[in-house]
Amino acid sequence: MFKAQIVSDNIKEFIGTIAPIVDEAKMKIGPTGITIKAVDPSHVAMIETTLTSGAFNNLEAEEAELGVDVTKFKSVIGVAKPGELVDIERNTEMNSLIVSIGNLVRAMPLLDMTGMADPKVPNLDLPTVVKVKAEEVSQGLKASKMVSDHIELSANEESFRLVCKGENQNRVDLTMNRSQLDELKAPNDTSSLFSLDYFSLMVNSVKQDRIITISLGNDLPVKIEAELAMNGNTGAHGSVRFLLAPRIDRD
Amino acid sequence: MFKAQIVSDNIKEFIGTIAPIVDEAKMKIGPTGITIKAVDPSHVAMIETTLTSGAFNNLEAEEAELGVDVTKFKSVIGVAKPGELVDIERNTEMNSLIVSIGNLVRAMPLLDMTGMADPKVPNLDLPTVVKVKAEEVSQGLKASKMVSDHIELSANEESFRLVCKGENQNRVDLTMNRSQLDELKAPNDTSSLFSLDYFSLMVNSVKQDRIITISLGNDLPVKIEAELAMNGNTGAHGSVRFLLAPRIDRD
Amino acid sequence: MFKAQIVSDNIKEFIGTIAPIVDEAKMKIGPTGITIKAVDPSHVAMIETTLTSGAFNNLEAEEAELGVDVTKFKSVIGVAKPGELVDIERNTEMNSLIVSIGNLVRAMPLLDMTGMADPKVPNLDLPTVVKVKAEEVSQGLKASKMVSDHIELSANEESFRLVCKGENQNRVDLTMNRSQLDELKAPNDTSSLFSLDYFSLMVNSVKQDRIITISLGNDLPVKIEAELAMNGNTGAHGSVRFLLAPRIDRD
Repeated sequence: MFKAQIVSDNIKEFIGTIAPIVDEAKMKIGPTGITIKAVDPSHVAMIETTLTSGAFNNLEAEEAELGVDVTKFKSVIGVAKPGELVDIERNTEMNSLIVSIGNLVRAMPLLDMTGMADPKVPNLDLPTVVKVKAEEVSQGLKASKMVSDHIELSANEESFRLVCKGENQNRVDLTMNRSQLDELKAPNDTSSLFSLDYFSLMVNSVKQDRIITISLGNDLPVKIEAELAMNGNTGAHGSVRFLLAPRIDRD
Repeated sequence: MFKAQIVSDNIKEFIGTIAPIVDEAKMKIGPTGITIKAVDPSHVAMIETTLTSGAFNNLEAEEAELGVDVTKFKSVIGVAKPGELVDIERNTEMNSLIVSIGNLVRAMPLLDMTGMADPKVPNLDLPTVVKVKAEEVSQGLKASKMVSDHIELSANEESFRLVCKGENQNRVDLTMNRSQLDELKAPNDTSSLFSLDYFSLMVNSVKQDRIITISLGNDLPVKIEAELAMNGNTGAHGSVRFLLAPRIDRD
Repeated sequence: MFKAQIVSDNIKEFIGTIAPIVDEAKMKIGPTGITIKAVDPSHVAMIETTLTSGAFNNLEAEEAELGVDVTKFKSVIGVAKPGELVDIERNTEMNSLIVSIGNLVRAMPLLDMTGMADPKVPNLDLPTVVKVKAEEVSQGLKASKMVSDHIELSANEESFRLVCKGENQNRVDLTMNRSQLDELKAPNDTSSLFSLDYFSLMVNSVKQDRIITISLGNDLPVKIEAELAMNGNTGAHGSVRFLLAPRIDRD
């Protein structure tokens, strides 16, 4: 069984992190919370996003996996107002997910999970760790549009840096010194190249005043982590972790 | 002669109800107010919308009919600010409607009314009557998008219901109990199927905090009524009535 | 050398006047300020726009000309928040313009200026001078859309007038009397016809609460002038001047 009540803001935040990556996904449910792990169709981006039971007003769930239409789910919870309660229930007979918002009831058939990836999130040793407000990074990404389709992230003892090199001398350089970051751990110099599109989708999928943690290596994937379902009194009740593969077509 | 002065909000509301239904219409004018009756090109939707003389700051009009370009009229009054006065006058010599807003004067030729329908609004016996705030219904319509292109409206002694059934188990159900409605008169169970598009256009054409009256039968047209040109002290000075034919392609 | 610091609002206003006219332009720099003169590709519209040194927090510049990609420049300064400081510097070695906003550094290659027009702004004797708030004119232009693609500007001792005549009797007439204008100097009656598109682009490129000066003759170009980089204490620190050729295809 699966029967949950949650404030719309929390479930919107959760689905908001998945929607840029996949249209359909396997959602693991259980008494401790809900989790989606997914890989995008081109196998460049990976996501693991979780809401713990504390993000819910009520959660009754046995361990199970549900095939969810992410696009439809996002569209339904989009009609909920901020602070409005959303009820989510599995109807086993109809093999559907029933989402209720006020007087509104939306039934969505669960999807066949054959062929849905069950990605093992690799355990990477990424030496560099940067903590920074999402909007600080977003400004650099916005300025990089129309310059190039890839972006270099690098860090050293002094600073974290985002460089986008285009044709001719076109170039965007966002350098944030240690003092401007919430944290910088860079035991050695690291640098990797990524798709600007994917990296932007990830950074923009979280609330812009949220601190994100970026972990980097040399020509290794980047890991982007953020907390979800923040409560002023009790803290975060969820988290998202993105992994993005590096691009190897270095100039 | 036709010479009227009206606050922009009132005339915008009036034209806002017609614009989704027809591009050109016959407007009846007279000392008691102005009225448009029209049928949409596919003969599925009918509208009768009226502003009484109380909606105007000044109204001098002999009984007459004017062929009005609704799209152009809407576009002109769109440049008026909220609360700004709009003067409307017929120029018989030029066979035009002259709309003045501040220093701005817009002349629009009146249209030939040959071929413009003069619909007799049928006198239907619709037993079920529901009164509800427009925005309550709109939320259900928004959630129904991408589920199906038709919607079932039904009512019984307990509740008013809006159901949209899509393929597979996709389904939206908005049920409002007697206590959540401003009024519910349902002597017997009624149910009819309608075009989601048309029904949405009608409900969304009125101010969302306005109470709408929905009258229903069994496989009969739905009637949607709302008040226009509300004044805090003197009440409504106009009204709109939509009729929408039922769809007969029941599942 | 060229090294300048300026508040984002001022440089946005400057670039905002050029962007509707040309994509690339020759920017003259010097110790007294920066200026762009340009002609649009169809040779109908001309612009001269200037920021004086007072618009800058700091300006160090030798006399020179720089080939600027207006579209890219506009896009970069678009990421700056209101009131944020923008640093602009020429890198001679890289032949680039370096724009810095906070931690963000954007390098843009300077363009080859061969083929960029160096327009001589003609010294026209335009007898009629009208001063009016931009938004007053904009309302008339908005109402003229879909009526015709040209507009007649005229003035006499009493009033300034903007007339847009479409097919049939469609017509927009915006007449502003002497008392509604900030200034009206009209020694004799004048009237000229212009492209509605270009005239709208010019009027809409300046802040809408700004007074614009419109100078007119008989079938002569119209000149539109406005102040830029206004400071509550020290006044304007820049100006823009547009010239728009008349249309000769009078009805």
